[in-house]
Amino acid sequence: MTRRDFINRTSAAYAGLSAWGLLQPAPAQAFDLPPLDSAQGRKVLILGAGLAGLSAAYELGKLGYDCTVLEARARSGGRVWTVRGGTTETEQGGPTQTSQFAGGLYFNGGAARIPHNHQLTLQYCRELGVPLEVFVGANEAAYLFNEKAQGPLNNRRMRIRDYHNDMRGYTSELLAKALDQSALDEKLTKEDVEKLIDFLKNEGDLNTAHLYKGTNRRGYKIDASRPVYADGGPGAGANPGTLTDPYGLTDLLRSGFMQPVFYNVGEYTYEQQTTLLQPVGGMDAIAKALEKKLAGKLVFNAPVKQLRKTETGVRVVYERDGKPTELAAEFCVCTIPLPVLKNIDSDLSGPVKRAADFVPYIKTGKIGLQFKRRFWEEDDGIYGGISRTDMDINQIWYPSFGFMGNKGVLIGYYNFYSRAEAVASLSIAERQKIALEQGAKIHPQYAAEFENSFSLAWHRIPYSEGGWALYDDASRRKFYPALLEPDGNIYFAGEHTTYLTAWMAGAFTSARRVVDAIHSRVGQYTQK
Amino acid sequence: MTRRDFINRTSAAYAGLSAWGLLQPAPAQAFDLPPLDSAQGRKVLILGAGLAGLSAAYELGKLGYDCTVLEARARSGGRVWTVRGGTTETEQGGPTQTSQFAGGLYFNGGAARIPHNHQLTLQYCRELGVPLEVFVGANEAAYLFNEKAQGPLNNRRMRIRDYHNDMRGYTSELLAKALDQSALDEKLTKEDVEKLIDFLKNEGDLNTAHLYKGTNRRGYKIDASRPVYADGGPGAGANPGTLTDPYGLTDLLRSGFMQPVFYNVGEYTYEQQTTLLQPVGGMDAIAKALEKKLAGKLVFNAPVKQLRKTETGVRVVYERDGKPTELAAEFCVCTIPLPVLKNIDSDLSGPVKRAADFVPYIKTGKIGLQFKRRFWEEDDGIYGGISRTDMDINQIWYPSFGFMGNKGVLIGYYNFYSRAEAVASLSIAERQKIALEQGAKIHPQYAAEFENSFSLAWHRIPYSEGGWALYDDASRRKFYPALLEPDGNIYFAGEHTTYLTAWMAGAFTSARRVVDAIHSRVGQYTQK
Repeated sequence: MTRRDFINRTSAAYAGLSAWGLLQPAPAQAFDLPPLDSAQGRKVLILGAGLAGLSAAYELGKLGYDCTVLEARARSGGRVWTVRGGTTETEQGGPTQTSQFAGGLYFNGGAARIPHNHQLTLQYCRELGVPLEVFVGANEAAYLFNEKAQGPLNNRRMRIRDYHNDMRGYTSELLAKALDQSALDEKLTKEDVEKLIDFLKNEGDLNTAHLYKGTNRRGYKIDASRPVYADGGPGAGANPGTLTDPYGLTDLLRSGFMQPVFYNVGEYTYEQQTTLLQPVGGMDAIAKALEKKLAGKLVFNAPVKQLRKTETGVRVVYERDGKPTELAAEFCVCTIPLPVLKNIDSDLSGPVKRAADFVPYIKTGKIGLQFKRRFWEEDDGIYGGISRTDMDINQIWYPSFGFMGNKGVLIGYYNFYSRAEAVASLSIAERQKIALEQGAKIHPQYAAEFENSFSLAWHRIPYSEGGWALYDDASRRKFYPALLEPDGNIYFAGEHTTYLTAWMAGAFTSARRVVDAIHSRVGQYTQK
Repeated sequence: MTRRDFINRTSAAYAGLSAWGLLQPAPAQAFDLPPLDSAQGRKVLILGAGLAGLSAAYELGKLGYDCTVLEARARSGGRVWTVRGGTTETEQGGPTQTSQFAGGLYFNGGAARIPHNHQLTLQYCRELGVPLEVFVGANEAAYLFNEKAQGPLNNRRMRIRDYHNDMRGYTSELLAKALDQSALDEKLTKEDVEKLIDFLKNEGDLNTAHLYKGTNRRGYKIDASRPVYADGGPGAGANPGTLTDPYGLTDLLRSGFMQPVFYNVGEYTYEQQTTLLQPVGGMDAIAKALEKKLAGKLVFNAPVKQLRKTETGVRVVYERDGKPTELAAEFCVCTIPLPVLKNIDSDLSGPVKRAADFVPYIKTGKIGLQFKRRFWEEDDGIYGGISRTDMDINQIWYPSFGFMGNKGVLIGYYNFYSRAEAVASLSIAERQKIALEQGAKIHPQYAAEFENSFSLAWHRIPYSEGGWALYDDASRRKFYPALLEPDGNIYFAGEHTTYLTAWMAGAFTSARRVVDAIHSRVGQYTQK
């Protein structure tokens, strides 16, 4: 029984369940297109061994199609890429870097987290036996560092918990005051207002007078005279701990924390809310698990040079050991990112070529920094999560694995747009310098503990040339539709053909969509 | 160099760092009391092999003391207890239960999470080589279920994310309105108000008119007609996803969510903020690692029957194979929980006896439910975290390990006070029945997937007889001080001798405190 069948059969029950809040999305499951004799052995050429290409080949293979995947790189995964000791990359116009990370250390250079609500990604992990662990996104112990504002709290680090609790405290206090004064002409009864104030008292940890005067949620003062057996907060014996003082509301407001870089993305955004997950050992475990299912079907080091529609399907010329090599097939699934596709000699239709030319991709970069010691854990109590700053480094990511290990790799910057462009344009050594200098403002331990680094800029990495497709309403209207229709027998997949851009789930759902499209064409059924 | 020395030496630098927010608590480290010849071989009798007793023996052993630990149970750990297949327990007046959990499945019956700011606990994990993984506390995908209120949203489950985002939305809207109307006589400049409104717009995801009309942070509608390749939210092709509708503010206010059971404890409380950690494989890994360091020093199945002060120290009578056995020592560290201590024949001082008699301990219980299938992950996208309800089951905890396994054990209730008392007073079968019936209101899959259970009530478990010490201001004043002084040569340790009651960190800090007290007495130095 397919999910569709299940839903159709139970639509009355469905309405009832929904009313009681008992309904959830039917769980994602193994893809279940109808088997077709006519599909057996039909040739499909897949361009790109990122997750879209790999999963398309995997699903088409299950249905009996004869797939070949051409991959320009020596590895699969595309923007799902884990950087370990020995990993090597040469950016456009750049020198070759080889990672010197110690054994067991890594960072995910591209996709780095799986939202718990991305069912397709989780389904593939389940189906392929990829073990998952928690990825820590929101971490109240991480820091904010605001350099550019000219306020009283700028140019210093602040625990995220302090900012969050203070702002919740003050806003709750202000609203409670407005409600106490009946200043709001709302359709709330007296009883409603009482309940709302109860909510605010807890939300902001207000005192009995409905004032915010600080909270133990901020933690405790560091007491230099504390006994050796205590650990900074409340402890044994006569040691109840000393509360910290809140920042002032106007100090917070005048220190520039209202800009997007400091938004509470990790707690609020749908795709970043707890719980997030990651494959144990690196994100490329997903690509590797798919690769295992495609033995003999992948051709690496095979950059596509020409893409042609023919009377019987498609013809592709790719480079193999420096020589042009030709392959023909009935169908093609093209997952090549648009900035790369636009430079391939093809007879793609005008609308597709325009999409390739004009859909912008984000500029984004990361650097992995290896340190001798996991000082962020040992000294700062930071286990995973993200610090945020308006400096060029933008975000520091702490690893969500290998806790308490001897060494560690953190992501010293994860930046976007002009920040990413500025940093990426520097030499490898200068990128490292910026990461260390700016990072040291948050973590003074950087200087003493640093060992080596590996940086990357997706917009300069061959065969990607960007982080992900950046649509706005206009480009969705103008360019996106062309990518949803087959151009002859060429179908397009990849995150750029979805509303889940930037996410692995986009790659997967796009692959299922084109597999369904090809299969329904072959089988002459209506695409599901 | 001790931490104290470090701090003394650097106090000028410290002040400077502090001003810039660069200071953090010095990291916890291995306990570093001065070695003393006079300590060598002196006998210390430790009562109780919970974390306080184990760590006291471990630290005293490092200093050369000759320790013996008497433990009433057949196992170490006390209230640090992991229930696995084969685990057995007999509550007072109850039958013997033996867990039937499948291999690899377990739940932590007592202590179950390590706050990232409990440095001592983390230090012991580091020092003892106990590997840690993330414990998911706050999970926006988990549910709230309000049964008793008579409001429009009661008696149905609600995703925590929906409640949080709606309340943030409405309260931000209300405050923005009050600010727009200058209804608040605050010392905020016009510019401050603009910034605060910027904050509120993001905090509540308000529209340009400063109204809350729902948010994509709540996720997407379930579209029964969605294509098979999509997963419920936005997806490939022409599938941008459909937003959900917010609940009404008055509906929320009138449905009883303002009571403590629904407080956002997991995100706000200092000890429960992200990141939380747990030992891989079960919390008892900490006790087992300490046990390894104490070979030959532990006597199990040795309940203490008498505790006497003597001229040369202490004398203890315990039961061994049904016979009274005697041990003498110079010092004693008594970690026995007060409800157990009060029934031991002793010549403890009046104030200590009164503390034992009158400090209340919390009643609390848990049940582990084994299911055939991890439906909370597969169907609901819940990976770890806690659902909350005003039903007797109070909390449902989802495991933060073994994701995507075939079977799973979740904690079907974790309750306190009268709820715990009511459920604990039932038979084992009736406890299971309540857990299944009430839990099924949140997870209808319970009935089809249930396999077996194991329940416990700490207030009925011999040698614990309670969850943890429950002090209020009055009992801190009246009873607590007696536990901080040695009674003759008897020292008291355990979470009940700290301001970290209920936490493992309390046990550890209390152990260090008494070790320091004994050692300073022996060495005639001033206790640190």
